[in-house]
Amino acid sequence: MQYKIRKSAVQIRGLFGPVIQHRIKRKPPGQAPGTILHTGIKRMEELKMTLHDFDENRYENISIDKITDAERYIKSASKTWIQIHGLHDIEKLKEIWNFFDIHPLVQEDIVSVNQRPKVEPYDDIIFIVLRMIKGVNTSNEELQTEQLSIILGKNYVLSFQESDDTLFEPIIRRLLLNNTRLRRLSCDYLAYALLDNVVDHYFSALDMAGEHIESIEEEVISNPKPLNLQHIHTLRRDLIFLRKSVWSLRDGLNSLIRDESPLISNDVKIYLRDVYDHIVQVIDSIENHREMVFSLYDMYMSSLSNRMNEIMKVLTIIATIFIPLTFIAGVYGMNFNPEISPLNMPELNWEWGYPASLLIMATVAAIMMFYFKRKGWL
Amino acid sequence: MQYKIRKSAVQIRGLFGPVIQHRIKRKPPGQAPGTILHTGIKRMEELKMTLHDFDENRYENISIDKITDAERYIKSASKTWIQIHGLHDIEKLKEIWNFFDIHPLVQEDIVSVNQRPKVEPYDDIIFIVLRMIKGVNTSNEELQTEQLSIILGKNYVLSFQESDDTLFEPIIRRLLLNNTRLRRLSCDYLAYALLDNVVDHYFSALDMAGEHIESIEEEVISNPKPLNLQHIHTLRRDLIFLRKSVWSLRDGLNSLIRDESPLISNDVKIYLRDVYDHIVQVIDSIENHREMVFSLYDMYMSSLSNRMNEIMKVLTIIATIFIPLTFIAGVYGMNFNPEISPLNMPELNWEWGYPASLLIMATVAAIMMFYFKRKGWL
Amino acid sequence: MQYKIRKSAVQIRGLFGPVIQHRIKRKPPGQAPGTILHTGIKRMEELKMTLHDFDENRYENISIDKITDAERYIKSASKTWIQIHGLHDIEKLKEIWNFFDIHPLVQEDIVSVNQRPKVEPYDDIIFIVLRMIKGVNTSNEELQTEQLSIILGKNYVLSFQESDDTLFEPIIRRLLLNNTRLRRLSCDYLAYALLDNVVDHYFSALDMAGEHIESIEEEVISNPKPLNLQHIHTLRRDLIFLRKSVWSLRDGLNSLIRDESPLISNDVKIYLRDVYDHIVQVIDSIENHREMVFSLYDMYMSSLSNRMNEIMKVLTIIATIFIPLTFIAGVYGMNFNPEISPLNMPELNWEWGYPASLLIMATVAAIMMFYFKRKGWL
Amino acid sequence: MQYKIRKSAVQIRGLFGPVIQHRIKRKPPGQAPGTILHTGIKRMEELKMTLHDFDENRYENISIDKITDAERYIKSASKTWIQIHGLHDIEKLKEIWNFFDIHPLVQEDIVSVNQRPKVEPYDDIIFIVLRMIKGVNTSNEELQTEQLSIILGKNYVLSFQESDDTLFEPIIRRLLLNNTRLRRLSCDYLAYALLDNVVDHYFSALDMAGEHIESIEEEVISNPKPLNLQHIHTLRRDLIFLRKSVWSLRDGLNSLIRDESPLISNDVKIYLRDVYDHIVQVIDSIENHREMVFSLYDMYMSSLSNRMNEIMKVLTIIATIFIPLTFIAGVYGMNFNPEISPLNMPELNWEWGYPASLLIMATVAAIMMFYFKRKGWL
Amino acid sequence: MQYKIRKSAVQIRGLFGPVIQHRIKRKPPGQAPGTILHTGIKRMEELKMTLHDFDENRYENISIDKITDAERYIKSASKTWIQIHGLHDIEKLKEIWNFFDIHPLVQEDIVSVNQRPKVEPYDDIIFIVLRMIKGVNTSNEELQTEQLSIILGKNYVLSFQESDDTLFEPIIRRLLLNNTRLRRLSCDYLAYALLDNVVDHYFSALDMAGEHIESIEEEVISNPKPLNLQHIHTLRRDLIFLRKSVWSLRDGLNSLIRDESPLISNDVKIYLRDVYDHIVQVIDSIENHREMVFSLYDMYMSSLSNRMNEIMKVLTIIATIFIPLTFIAGVYGMNFNPEISPLNMPELNWEWGYPASLLIMATVAAIMMFYFKRKGWL
Ligand SMILES: [Mg+2]
Ligand SMILES: [Mg+2]
Ligand SMILES: [Mg+2]
Ligand SMILES: [Mg+2]
Ligand SMILES: [Mg+2]
Ligand SMILES: [Mg+2]
Ligand SMILES: [Mg+2]
Ligand SMILES: [Mg+2]
Ligand SMILES: [Mg+2]
Ligand SMILES: [Mg+2]
Ligand SMILES: [Mg+2]
Ligand SMILES: [Mg+2]
Ligand SMILES: [Mg+2]
Ligand SMILES: [Mg+2]
Ligand SMILES: [Mg+2]
Ligand SMILES: [Mg+2]
Ligand SMILES: [Mg+2]
Ligand SMILES: [Mg+2]
Ligand SMILES: [Mg+2]
Ligand SMILES: [Mg+2]
Ligand SMILES: [Mg+2]
Ligand SMILES: [Mg+2]
Ligand SMILES: [Mg+2]
Ligand SMILES: [Mg+2]
Ligand SMILES: [Mg+2]
Ligand SMILES: [Mg+2]
Ligand SMILES: [Mg+2]
Ligand SMILES: [Mg+2]
Ligand SMILES: [Mg+2]
Ligand SMILES: [Mg+2]
Ligand SMILES: [Mg+2]
Repeated sequence: MQYKIRKSAVQIRGLFGPVIQHRIKRKPPGQAPGTILHTGIKRMEELKMTLHDFDENRYENISIDKITDAERYIKSASKTWIQIHGLHDIEKLKEIWNFFDIHPLVQEDIVSVNQRPKVEPYDDIIFIVLRMIKGVNTSNEELQTEQLSIILGKNYVLSFQESDDTLFEPIIRRLLLNNTRLRRLSCDYLAYALLDNVVDHYFSALDMAGEHIESIEEEVISNPKPLNLQHIHTLRRDLIFLRKSVWSLRDGLNSLIRDESPLISNDVKIYLRDVYDHIVQVIDSIENHREMVFSLYDMYMSSLSNRMNEIMKVLTIIATIFIPLTFIAGVYGMNFNPEISPLNMPELNWEWGYPASLLIMATVAAIMMFYFKRKGWL
Repeated sequence: MQYKIRKSAVQIRGLFGPVIQHRIKRKPPGQAPGTILHTGIKRMEELKMTLHDFDENRYENISIDKITDAERYIKSASKTWIQIHGLHDIEKLKEIWNFFDIHPLVQEDIVSVNQRPKVEPYDDIIFIVLRMIKGVNTSNEELQTEQLSIILGKNYVLSFQESDDTLFEPIIRRLLLNNTRLRRLSCDYLAYALLDNVVDHYFSALDMAGEHIESIEEEVISNPKPLNLQHIHTLRRDLIFLRKSVWSLRDGLNSLIRDESPLISNDVKIYLRDVYDHIVQVIDSIENHREMVFSLYDMYMSSLSNRMNEIMKVLTIIATIFIPLTFIAGVYGMNFNPEISPLNMPELNWEWGYPASLLIMATVAAIMMFYFKRKGWL
Repeated sequence: MQYKIRKSAVQIRGLFGPVIQHRIKRKPPGQAPGTILHTGIKRMEELKMTLHDFDENRYENISIDKITDAERYIKSASKTWIQIHGLHDIEKLKEIWNFFDIHPLVQEDIVSVNQRPKVEPYDDIIFIVLRMIKGVNTSNEELQTEQLSIILGKNYVLSFQESDDTLFEPIIRRLLLNNTRLRRLSCDYLAYALLDNVVDHYFSALDMAGEHIESIEEEVISNPKPLNLQHIHTLRRDLIFLRKSVWSLRDGLNSLIRDESPLISNDVKIYLRDVYDHIVQVIDSIENHREMVFSLYDMYMSSLSNRMNEIMKVLTIIATIFIPLTFIAGVYGMNFNPEISPLNMPELNWEWGYPASLLIMATVAAIMMFYFKRKGWL
Repeated sequence: MQYKIRKSAVQIRGLFGPVIQHRIKRKPPGQAPGTILHTGIKRMEELKMTLHDFDENRYENISIDKITDAERYIKSASKTWIQIHGLHDIEKLKEIWNFFDIHPLVQEDIVSVNQRPKVEPYDDIIFIVLRMIKGVNTSNEELQTEQLSIILGKNYVLSFQESDDTLFEPIIRRLLLNNTRLRRLSCDYLAYALLDNVVDHYFSALDMAGEHIESIEEEVISNPKPLNLQHIHTLRRDLIFLRKSVWSLRDGLNSLIRDESPLISNDVKIYLRDVYDHIVQVIDSIENHREMVFSLYDMYMSSLSNRMNEIMKVLTIIATIFIPLTFIAGVYGMNFNPEISPLNMPELNWEWGYPASLLIMATVAAIMMFYFKRKGWL
Repeated sequence: MQYKIRKSAVQIRGLFGPVIQHRIKRKPPGQAPGTILHTGIKRMEELKMTLHDFDENRYENISIDKITDAERYIKSASKTWIQIHGLHDIEKLKEIWNFFDIHPLVQEDIVSVNQRPKVEPYDDIIFIVLRMIKGVNTSNEELQTEQLSIILGKNYVLSFQESDDTLFEPIIRRLLLNNTRLRRLSCDYLAYALLDNVVDHYFSALDMAGEHIESIEEEVISNPKPLNLQHIHTLRRDLIFLRKSVWSLRDGLNSLIRDESPLISNDVKIYLRDVYDHIVQVIDSIENHREMVFSLYDMYMSSLSNRMNEIMKVLTIIATIFIPLTFIAGVYGMNFNPEISPLNMPELNWEWGYPASLLIMATVAAIMMFYFKRKGWL
């Protein structure tokens, strides 16, 4: 996972910040709820569905083309997880939604890929939206995020996302093993595993932000420059948006743990409490990062002030020493005629005039330097 | 929708800010509640009433002159929505209010068009006040806002606003379609649709503010000037007022979703939850915009400090190099008489006096420049 | 004490600020509760009592000398409002309090005229303290505030204040009209009317503060000066104290609306909700004003920095252009003897020496100016 | 230790601030709770006990040596208040605690004299700790504070403090009077009276802080100097610590009023509500003082900036006027030989050369001054 | 890693700050919960178990190798405390956990040594994680912290930590004494004693931080330098992290006191309330320290401004006095030929020309100095 320290802020910004946000597609106002418009990017050629069906003794993994192919799995007692990759093909999504009788508002949220994370209970399902940090693209070193929507039903889990990636591979590998909790317990445990997997990835992003803050810190201390300020500004923005994502997820999880839903067993609640704990840790880190960013700004400003002080000190010392000397030289450069009267610059004709004047100048300079020394400026 | 980036802040300000606010008409203190005074602007020649009556199978749309014309619609089982445009004609409004037996405090709020948004349950109606952002006037590029009051009764909805506009046209178009939720469900769904339509328009305003922040951002980074500061100040004010409007609306909606009112069905509550969600998204964006504006101010201040530093550096370098040189020149411009004694400025009569003095000057300048180079100032 | 828009902050300060506060009389510590000491100003020669007795059909208004004169009104089923003006005559107040069997802590609060606003339920009465803004004195433009204490009993209302003024005249005029809510409903509605009247007056004070902020705003933008800073500081203080007054009143009203007191009917609670709403609006405005004042301070500081930048730029340009020129002039003002050797300032004896030196100077100046132009300083 | 208004911050600091705090004795970690160590100062030679026994008809005041002397008073139905002065004699304290069967944690808190104020219910007593401000020592003008611990039992009150002072004399005087509430009501009223007495003394401290803030305010406006900044810093610290003390006392009192303890009657709760009210007033004042201190800092910083501006203006004006003049003088001080060619400084030999050069200088100066005037710098 | 008071911030930072934090080992995302990875440091050669078994009459202390050696102690009615030192040997830990049937999430937390402090109830145990400050290493003056995990069962307590240290020796010594609360009461009291011991050590760390703040304070006042700023920045970070640790511990303890767990008796809850109280005191101190650190930054910035002011004043005074003088000298150094006309610098040939010019210079200097005196700059 490579990551250009110098440019990271700018890239993170593109992921969470207003730059992207205000260019997201929006449905025209006043349309009926459930009007479906995909507000994201088409990341796959075709919508792809992967079905995982399993119980304590069995695990099957097939690719399906039509949702009706899933019917027998859903109707059986086994647990079924269908991964839907690709959100641009509304027609095909409609088929899936109609099959599961999904509420139009849920449909709308699945394809509106800039949702605030949330957990919403409906009559017979629980709907969960969150933002997953998929990792760092190795070619362009960009952080990649995507909206993940999870529908948890009685004996099935649907997950919707725009692209096909390897984020859930560890879970799929664990599904292959017999007699694990994942195979034994209900679908709520699978949903937990997906959530847990997503939250684990936040820590990497935070570690990166931490390193980024530190590198700015070092620069601000050693050599503050305007570019640092822009980095600080961008970091501030990114942390705001990152915070927003996680805060609302925390509240959603909390209500999931507290509420009495038949879809979530008490055993799984203990596991959800663990995810909750991790989210709180993420929030703590974000808050701490934010405070450090505020502090960085303060350091930057005082570094600037320190610089200014130093510049002024040099200027003042040079000017203050030479200005009186130059004045003295100027006096003896006056052209008053010594021949007119003995009062007119008799020094010019004294034998020790020139050395004496140099001595006076040296004395003045010495006094000045003593004064500066005492002030602690030298 | 054109929008002058440069002047937008000033215009937004006129809409929400104290400038307007403290010039709004106020009733003299101590008057009985329910004393009716329209505190807004007369925007229409005459009060205009449009009645929409519909049920699952039927939709009728007529313009009525007297509220009694609505009697048979109201008394029937069909759902009726009456749009009242124009709030200056208190006489005619009184007729409407008396017909529906509206509480005097509600009457007062409808025509006091600077209300905080709120949702108030009364015995047999729910009263909702909110501020709608109607769009951007194409001629003068001004954001137009207006107070919208909604009264939700058992089988009717009344909506009051100052002007006649096309904001609700998408809803009227949807009313024409048979067998939609809008036609099938009760009046609470219609009220939801109105709210949803209003909230959708907030996003456009926020997108605009986002663009505005970005344009200031770019200027502050590249070329900070006092005008930026005024824009920042104005943005700060506008966001405060925008925030105020939305915060209280959120609380109102929340109580609507939580409370057990016979006027709101559980099905519609799910839809209200969606509007609630959008409002929270609006609030989040406003808060983020506010923090970015704080950050902009910090950037502006440090850009200024950077400038000052640069100016001081130039001054210091020039002054520090030339001041000692000028002093040396001054010394050899003194008029001590070399003829009086060999101690008096013998340099003047040395063969290499002048080149030597120039050399000394060049050396001093070189030392200075080396010093500045080491300091990193050059 | 003059109240002019420009100076308003200074005067408001005298009303709410610590200057007055720490000079208020205090009872010596350790005294029994109910020890009565008037901590305010004697504003009337004599305590004055005005009694209003009314029911649906009848209104009577008499001035009474002894509280026993009120006995028959109190004992009858009619509603009675007694206005007590003047709080310095403890003897006479004691008679009134004993007649109504008022709790000693209530007695103490009535004459301690620097109370935080509050609403306190006692066994058979509700005690309300608030600060009323009486208006702006037309002669000297001074904001006048005073503590108002209201005791709401089963069929009577007592109101205590230091002075005799016309604040409640609109209510007295409304009492004259037959068959109004004020005449029909119970004493709780009268208490509401008094509260409403007081809160209405806050808006005027806020409008003034708003105008004041705007006038400072304009000055800070066009011509910041130290006096602005003092105004900002004072405004900040005033808004803190104003806020304090209203916040606690809000909480008191809220508890009044929520609690089940037999003294407050549900019908009147709807009206109290309206007052509550107004107070929240007042609080919102105060908070917004506060934020604008913070922003004003930021603007002031950056205006100062802008000024400094401009000053430094002028100094730097002038100094940087002329310092090298002066140096060149200094060089050719040196007195090396050209006659000693051809190396010694041969320029002095060149035919084009002087014009050439002037040309060099002009070139240096031009280079400097070109440099500044490129920097954007000219 | 002198307390003068000018220096008060420094002295208050010693009372509440970390300077003292981190030098307080601490028990080594890991010791059993109830391990008793007096962490304060020995202020009396010997522990002294004063017993007040009273009921409606009788008041007795005796000094006792052994706690067993109090046995018959405690066992009788009368109310007994025992003042314990001096906390260094753990042996004797142990006797008292064992006599009343005091919980070891309470014992520990009584002699750990840097407790946060709190109200703790135990099975049969209520334990109250608070910090009392005893007053200002008339000789050295020092604020004196001390921890007061109160144990409220069924028919007795114990009060523990380090020194013997006159703070509770007003209460003892009131105990002498027959048929007062203090004599009639239960021990809870006595405890209330003690609390009330302590809280009354906070107002004096706040009045002092208010005066102190004002005096700094005046200085900062008229003549800001670094010493002000230290005062501001110290004030900030003191207010933090003062706030801490009162906040937790507020919460304790609140729980006392809300909870159903058989030791506190409803009648006394009304009186405790009054103390609570005073504490909230104290907290309000502290918060306001804090905000004013923040504002003072802002004023200080901008006063400094103003000063800098003024200094720079003077420097710029002088330098910008004289630098060009000096240059002109320098030019005509060059030694180009006019005799070599007519191009070489012919001005030197013009009849009006000198006056003309002076005129040019005057013109340049005048232009500069006109420029500064237009800038508003003169 | 040296810890000296002057440099403490830098070292504390290593203990709580992000530097360490982002280098902690993390499990790869997507693994099953309960996957065990020790994220800390191997501090002991071998895992070591010390078993303390005791009841009112008996105390036994043995070192065990296999957890099955503990079986008879656990099964008996006596209370058993097993200290586990060393967390790197997952195999051996697994044996212990399986013996006690510990939930996999608890297992995971025990070896993930960067947990937020928390208190988690499970079906039959209470799991407590906290960070203990073990003390200051006497050789290198380093603050040493470590994660402590406590499992409180019905008649046993397990404590897990990385190293073997003497932190709990005072408690072991107290266990030797007959008939103490520690021996008499249940295991909940032992768990309390461990918590209390840990919290007691926070005070030492806070005292150190307090001293550190004070030493920076003195430097900032007397001689601010950039290093101070870095110290302030680091202190700010350390306090954030310290705060985080303690805040969540407070919440955990609070829920422990409030909840009805059969594992915690009411008697012990009184003791837990005491620990809670201490934590609140710690939090208060941290908050106060944080505010003082903010204030330190403000002081630093204004100290810098003060310095700049002083420098500018010196420069301005020197420059402003000598610039006009140098100009005058320059004028009389011009070479206009007095012989050409009487207008050309006749002063040069006046008898009193030179003294007069010196007098003029002195006068100008005197006027300047008088002006500065009046400004208060001298
Ligand atoms: Mg934080
Ligand atoms: Mg934060
Ligand atoms: Mg924070
Ligand atoms: Mg912060
Ligand atoms: Mg900041
Ligand atoms: Mg915000
Ligand atoms: Mg925010
Ligand atoms: Mg924020
Ligand atoms: Mg904010
Ligand atoms: Mg902030
Ligand atoms: Mg801020
Ligand atoms: Mg700031
Ligand atoms: Mg505020
Ligand atoms: Mg605010
Ligand atoms: Mg606000
Ligand atoms: Mg604010
Ligand atoms: Mg600010
Ligand atoms: Mg602020
Ligand atoms: Mg505060
Ligand atoms: Mg405050
Ligand atoms: Mg505050
Ligand atoms: Mg504050
Ligand atoms: Mg501030
Ligand atoms: Mg804090
Ligand atoms: Mg604090
Ligand atoms: Mg704080
Ligand atoms: Mg804080
Ligand atoms: Mg600050
Ligand atoms: Mg602060
Ligand atoms: Mg801050
Ligand atoms: Mg600040």
